[in-house]
Amino acid sequence: MVKVCDDYLKLPGSYLFSTIGKKVNEFSVANPDKKIIRLGIGDVTRPLTPTIIKALHDAVDEMAVAETFRGYAPDLGYDFLRSAIAKNDYADRGCDIKDDEIFVSDGAKSDSGNIQEIFSKDCKIAVCDPVYPVYVDSNVMSGRAGSYVEKEGRFDKVIYMPCTKDTNFAPEIPDENPDIIYLCFPNNPTGATVPKSELQKWVDYANKIGAVIIYDAAYEAYISEDDVPHSIYECEGARTCAIELRSFSKNAGFTGVRLGFTVIPKDIEFDGVKLHALWARRHGTKYNGAPYIVQKAGEAVYSPEGKKEIRGLVDYYMRNASYILEGLKKAGYTVSGGVNAPYIWLKTPDKMTSWDFFDYLLNEVNVVGTPGAGFGPSGEGYFRLTAFGTYENTVEAVDRITKL
Amino acid sequence: MVKVCDDYLKLPGSYLFSTIGKKVNEFSVANPDKKIIRLGIGDVTRPLTPTIIKALHDAVDEMAVAETFRGYAPDLGYDFLRSAIAKNDYADRGCDIKDDEIFVSDGAKSDSGNIQEIFSKDCKIAVCDPVYPVYVDSNVMSGRAGSYVEKEGRFDKVIYMPCTKDTNFAPEIPDENPDIIYLCFPNNPTGATVPKSELQKWVDYANKIGAVIIYDAAYEAYISEDDVPHSIYECEGARTCAIELRSFSKNAGFTGVRLGFTVIPKDIEFDGVKLHALWARRHGTKYNGAPYIVQKAGEAVYSPEGKKEIRGLVDYYMRNASYILEGLKKAGYTVSGGVNAPYIWLKTPDKMTSWDFFDYLLNEVNVVGTPGAGFGPSGEGYFRLTAFGTYENTVEAVDRITKL
Repeated sequence: MVKVCDDYLKLPGSYLFSTIGKKVNEFSVANPDKKIIRLGIGDVTRPLTPTIIKALHDAVDEMAVAETFRGYAPDLGYDFLRSAIAKNDYADRGCDIKDDEIFVSDGAKSDSGNIQEIFSKDCKIAVCDPVYPVYVDSNVMSGRAGSYVEKEGRFDKVIYMPCTKDTNFAPEIPDENPDIIYLCFPNNPTGATVPKSELQKWVDYANKIGAVIIYDAAYEAYISEDDVPHSIYECEGARTCAIELRSFSKNAGFTGVRLGFTVIPKDIEFDGVKLHALWARRHGTKYNGAPYIVQKAGEAVYSPEGKKEIRGLVDYYMRNASYILEGLKKAGYTVSGGVNAPYIWLKTPDKMTSWDFFDYLLNEVNVVGTPGAGFGPSGEGYFRLTAFGTYENTVEAVDRITKL
Repeated sequence: MVKVCDDYLKLPGSYLFSTIGKKVNEFSVANPDKKIIRLGIGDVTRPLTPTIIKALHDAVDEMAVAETFRGYAPDLGYDFLRSAIAKNDYADRGCDIKDDEIFVSDGAKSDSGNIQEIFSKDCKIAVCDPVYPVYVDSNVMSGRAGSYVEKEGRFDKVIYMPCTKDTNFAPEIPDENPDIIYLCFPNNPTGATVPKSELQKWVDYANKIGAVIIYDAAYEAYISEDDVPHSIYECEGARTCAIELRSFSKNAGFTGVRLGFTVIPKDIEFDGVKLHALWARRHGTKYNGAPYIVQKAGEAVYSPEGKKEIRGLVDYYMRNASYILEGLKKAGYTVSGGVNAPYIWLKTPDKMTSWDFFDYLLNEVNVVGTPGAGFGPSGEGYFRLTAFGTYENTVEAVDRITKL
């Protein structure tokens, strides 16, 4: 008789963004006349840029002719994309990452969900609190997180590293040593970053205790300040302890195109086993490569024209970020983020809970954001707004909120 | 200190097709003047058809304009594709499958590798032997398969169902009851199928013992005989025990486009938990949807023109299959498959092992096939050739082999 995976049943409720989607949908059906502005899910709104569109069309044409048709992609990604990534994202920043240390995938969400598979179930994970929910959820589903403690809003085997106003929304080295440390900078949801000297401390710490850092740099394109590292490999010693996750979703607007990559240096080794080999085995066994046409689009992101256009997209969204940040600040809200990240993190007014404020904004001014509590217990009393809307909607949303 | 996943280390060697790729590559480098014909990996060679190409171009154009740009796809697939699938693959065959029981994904390989996650680690799996290696490998990697017994070429917790000449290359109900039964018809690698009455026995058996059937129908488009079921849902009672995996790779040539789907009827429930809900949760947490442009291409497969063109692709490859089947038969080989499937299964001559025959063909006539032993111990002494080459190469390969 079949038994289902008990660990799946330990997840409370559904995936955060699915819950939000359902709530918004219900409101929308009940109030068809209301114009809802969505600054909740971190989904982009600008179309793909001309260079990307051209690369897609060209690649589609190649698929129409036997001589240039492409079937299964190489397991780990096409060389043309892996070398463009190695050059532009790493060599050009002085980071020592080889082409074959880059694993192309259908996005950072899949990779951040799947990467835990290559580790023992006994490994203890540490996560920023609040943070992108996939890290904890995927570890719950594989039995590494223990049981949910309702009154704490926490899983009992996870080390939570509170990122609060008191810590400048950055994590501090935990009292108990973890085996796997998830870091996300620029942080989703707080928008916080750390200077290079601070990130170096984490690398040193991981190397000292024999831990791995899973570094989610999905938002690196939004970094505007000089001293903020774009890659963890800017730090000395990262090649022996750090895995980096990257995405084309937020810089190039690929949320609906699906492309990302994971970097695993060949120097990371435990008990004589290279993590690189394990992840290669996972790719080979359970994945069949990103589509050729999508990888060609990814290559175009690194062309001179592509880079210029991508810069334009980032600038567009960062204008929104500034508008939200300044507008809410002026209206008396306590806000942070929005400088090196497309997320604005605000304290809910009048000590409302995150979900109460979610309902309040949705009902009163028809603006959708994301409740901070959805990202972890330390997110309670906070709320995330994204800069990924259109400029017009962003202005209108801020206008509506500040008039409340 | 990090510990790696021990279960990953139980896998002997690398993924079958990665091994073959490496061997062929080495030969090719050492013998740059030889024209290698690849009938090994089941990768298609015909280009995408005009209707698919047009759908891709149109979708790319939509992504270029803000008004029609699409970001994140719905978790489980776009409605337009799910309803096209439900109508064409199920309703039109008299199968009762609803749109929302269809989960769109980036391919059947990912799904067949990931589906085991929703079951308890204590579940016992049964697999056809030989069969597509992902079923066993993914269960090894999650600790459900036990340890590898070198001299048997088997994992000690897996129930192997030998599919040999004596069983007409079909599995028989095993002595020990499994919890999860993987069936693949038309079978990869043997090309064998079973009539509907035989499949009905498996459905009845699964319902009786409380097992789940994971039914891989990736090759259903190649079925040419009337009595062979295209879907397990043609059998009575399948809605309470069967999950079906489907692919666009082999019918529409999407190996490099990446699109597939899994069907989980809402009637499958164990201990009050619907498998549908668990798989939805996995999709929501660890996956972000297939690209919009790819899903539009999938929709086009079901248009009247699309169907005609896809039929043309299947016919093209089945002409190859007949050519191989008849050619080898005439030359005295013992062959099967190739009638309802694009695979020809042949007995190696002179009692050669599968891998010896692989090396022999590669070295002597520069033809690449797949060693039967790579699909399971009962595949030893057999060899798989695929019909997915070009017609010209197929003719030449058969010519070369039969002259040996």
